[in-house]
Amino acid sequence: MNNNQYSQKALEEHKKLSGKIQITSTTRLTTTEQLSTYYTPGVGAVSSYLAKHPKEVKDYTIAGNTVAVISDGSAVLGLGNVGPEAALPVMEGKAMLFSELANLNAFPIVLRSQNTDEIINTIINIAPVFAAINLEDIAAPACFEIEKSLQSKLTIPVVHDDQHATAIAVLAGLINALKVVNKQANKIKIVIFGAGAAGNAVTKLLVTYGVGEIIAVDSKGIIYKGRDNLDIYKTELANITNSKNTKGSLEDAIVNADVVIGLTTGGNISPGEIKKMNSDPIVFALANPVPEIMPEDALGAGAAVVATGRSDFPNQINNVLVFPGLFKGLIASQQNSMNETIKITTAQALADCVTKPSAKNIIPSVFDKHVVSAIVTAIGSKHK
Amino acid sequence: MNNNQYSQKALEEHKKLSGKIQITSTTRLTTTEQLSTYYTPGVGAVSSYLAKHPKEVKDYTIAGNTVAVISDGSAVLGLGNVGPEAALPVMEGKAMLFSELANLNAFPIVLRSQNTDEIINTIINIAPVFAAINLEDIAAPACFEIEKSLQSKLTIPVVHDDQHATAIAVLAGLINALKVVNKQANKIKIVIFGAGAAGNAVTKLLVTYGVGEIIAVDSKGIIYKGRDNLDIYKTELANITNSKNTKGSLEDAIVNADVVIGLTTGGNISPGEIKKMNSDPIVFALANPVPEIMPEDALGAGAAVVATGRSDFPNQINNVLVFPGLFKGLIASQQNSMNETIKITTAQALADCVTKPSAKNIIPSVFDKHVVSAIVTAIGSKHK
Repeated sequence: MNNNQYSQKALEEHKKLSGKIQITSTTRLTTTEQLSTYYTPGVGAVSSYLAKHPKEVKDYTIAGNTVAVISDGSAVLGLGNVGPEAALPVMEGKAMLFSELANLNAFPIVLRSQNTDEIINTIINIAPVFAAINLEDIAAPACFEIEKSLQSKLTIPVVHDDQHATAIAVLAGLINALKVVNKQANKIKIVIFGAGAAGNAVTKLLVTYGVGEIIAVDSKGIIYKGRDNLDIYKTELANITNSKNTKGSLEDAIVNADVVIGLTTGGNISPGEIKKMNSDPIVFALANPVPEIMPEDALGAGAAVVATGRSDFPNQINNVLVFPGLFKGLIASQQNSMNETIKITTAQALADCVTKPSAKNIIPSVFDKHVVSAIVTAIGSKHK
Repeated sequence: MNNNQYSQKALEEHKKLSGKIQITSTTRLTTTEQLSTYYTPGVGAVSSYLAKHPKEVKDYTIAGNTVAVISDGSAVLGLGNVGPEAALPVMEGKAMLFSELANLNAFPIVLRSQNTDEIINTIINIAPVFAAINLEDIAAPACFEIEKSLQSKLTIPVVHDDQHATAIAVLAGLINALKVVNKQANKIKIVIFGAGAAGNAVTKLLVTYGVGEIIAVDSKGIIYKGRDNLDIYKTELANITNSKNTKGSLEDAIVNADVVIGLTTGGNISPGEIKKMNSDPIVFALANPVPEIMPEDALGAGAAVVATGRSDFPNQINNVLVFPGLFKGLIASQQNSMNETIKITTAQALADCVTKPSAKNIIPSVFDKHVVSAIVTAIGSKHK
C-alpha cells in the first residue's frame, strides 16, 4: 500500500475499533462471594493493610505492572504541536505494544497543559497508580526538565522514550553496522544530524559508549562551543562533542565521517554529502515518515549500510524494539532511574539478538519474540 | 464466612491477582501491515485528522468509552483518610465492576494530593483521555467544591458517586418500600442520620422528589437554621429541611418519623428509637460494614421494611446498582452534567426493575443483568 492508502485504512480501522485497548477484569464477578472478596466488604481489609504498608501497593494492585504513557501533544511523531487529542491514538498505540510485546498494562494519558510545572505536578499527583512513567512526544527542551525533575521526585522509573529508547536502538544498530564494515567505535567519526530530544540523547549515549569523534549538527549548522543561541542542552552537547571546535554546515561536518545519523524532522542529506564520507559509510536516516535520504539514493552514493525508521525497508531502527523490554526490565529489577550503563546494556542485548549481522540485517525485527526477554534478562543480571 | 475470613481471603486473592483489571489490545499486532495501520506510519493520519477535528477523538480512541475512577484517598469506605495506596484496590474494584456490568473501560486514578485546587487542576489536565469522571471516596466538604468546579470546567459528565449514586439507590429503595407500606412520599416524615457527602446528596434528592418533611441529623444533632458551626453545605441543608426548625438529638428527630435513613460512619440507631417512629417504620441502615442498627434488632422493634448496604441481608442498597448504568447512560446520551431530574429518572428505572416489591425485596440484586440496560434506556429516552 502507498501512504495514502495506509492513511485511509488507518482512519477506517481506528474508527471501527473506537479504542485500540480495552480494560477488563482479571477475574469473574458473578457471585456474592466474589463481590465480597474483590469489592466490599473484603476490599476493606486490603485498604486497611495498604494504609499501614503503602509500599506493598505494587503486590496487591495494578501499580506493580502498569506503565503510564504520557504526552502533552507538543511533539507528536513528525507532526509537531498538535495537542492532546491528536496525541492520544499514538499513546494508545504504545499501550497496545506494551501489552502485545511485553504483557505489561499500559494506559495512555494525554495532558491538557503544556506548562512544564503543571505537567510535572500532574504526573506526580497520578503516579501512585503506576510502576513506571513513559514520557512521550514532548518537545525539547521542556522534555529534559520534565524528565529530570520527575526522576528526582518519584521513586519509579521515568523514561522519555523519544530520547532514550531511540538512543538505545541507534546504538544497537551501530554496534552491528560497525561489525559489518569492520570498524571500531573508538576510531570513528560520527555526525549526528538533528539536536532535538533524540539527537541529544543519542549524542550523549555515543559519547559514553566511547565513539572517537562526534559532531552534532542542528538546523543552524555545526554545534560548537561559543555558538550563538545555544540553550543549556545544546551547550552541553557543544561541551562533550566537536573537540576541534569545527564550524560550518552539515556539508562541512560530514567530510571523512564514518557514520551519519539523521534524527531531524524534515531534514535532508544529499548523495553528494554521502560521497564526502570515509570508505564504507554507514547511513542511518531515521526521520519519519520521510528519511533524510532514501535508501536507494544512499546506496547509490556508496553507503555500505543503510537504516531507516520505516518498516518497508531493511534495518528498521524503531524504539518499538526497545521500550517494551526496557520498561519490563526496569520494573522487574526495581530500577528507579535510567542511566547510561543501563542503556548500553540494553543496546548490547538488542544487538546480540542478531547472530550474524549483515548490511541488510543489523537489527532484529520488531516481531522477534526473543527481543523483550533478552533485554529483560540483560538488565536483570547486570543491574540488580 | 465471617468478616475475618473474608479479610484473609481478600488479602490472599488480591495478592494472587496483582491487579484486578488488565489492559489489553483490542486487535492483534503480528504483521508489519497491522503495525503500520495501528502504529506508525498509519496512526499519523489519525493524529493529523484529530489535530483538525479534536472533538472526534471519542470516535477514534478510548476517549469515547473510558471512565476515570478518581480518589484522593481522603474518605475510603468507612476507613477515613487512608491515602492513595489504600484507595487503589477500591478504585480498581469499581473499574472491574464497570467492565463486568456495563462493558465500559474504567481506569483507577489515585492522587498524591489532597489539596482541592491541585485535585481540580490534575483532573482537568488528564481529562482528554476520558468520557466521564467518577469521583470517589473524597471527603466532604472538599468533594462538593471539586465536583462543582469540574462540572463547570469540563464538557464530560463529572459525578461524585458517593453522593449521587447513593442518593439514587436510596430513592429507588424508598419508592418500593413506600409501596410495601402503602404510604405516599409527600405525606411522610424522613430522618436522614449522617450529613456527609451521601447524607447531603440523599437529602437534596428527596427534597426534589417531594418528600413531605425531612430532618437531617449529624453527629452534633438536628441540623437547623442558625445552629452553630454549620458549613455552607450544612447551611444549605438547614435551609431546605426542618421547616419547623426543630432542635435536639436523633431521639428527638425520630419521633413520628415514617422513615429513617442511616448514612453515617459508625453511627448508632437504637431499638428504642425505632419504637418512637410512626406505624410501619422503614429503616435503611446503610453504614458499612456495620449498619447503624442490625436488621434483626430493627425488625424486633417493629420495622416493616429494613435495608442495609450489605450483601448478606435482604435489600442491599449499594451504589453498584447505579453507577454502571448511570455512567453508561450519561455517556450514551451525551449528557454533560448531572441534575436532580436525571437522578429521579434513574431511581425510578431502578425501582421498576422489581416487579412486585415486598418487605424483603425492594431493590434488585446487583447481579440482575437487566438493571444496567433499564437505566441506560431510561436516561436515553428522557434526557436527549
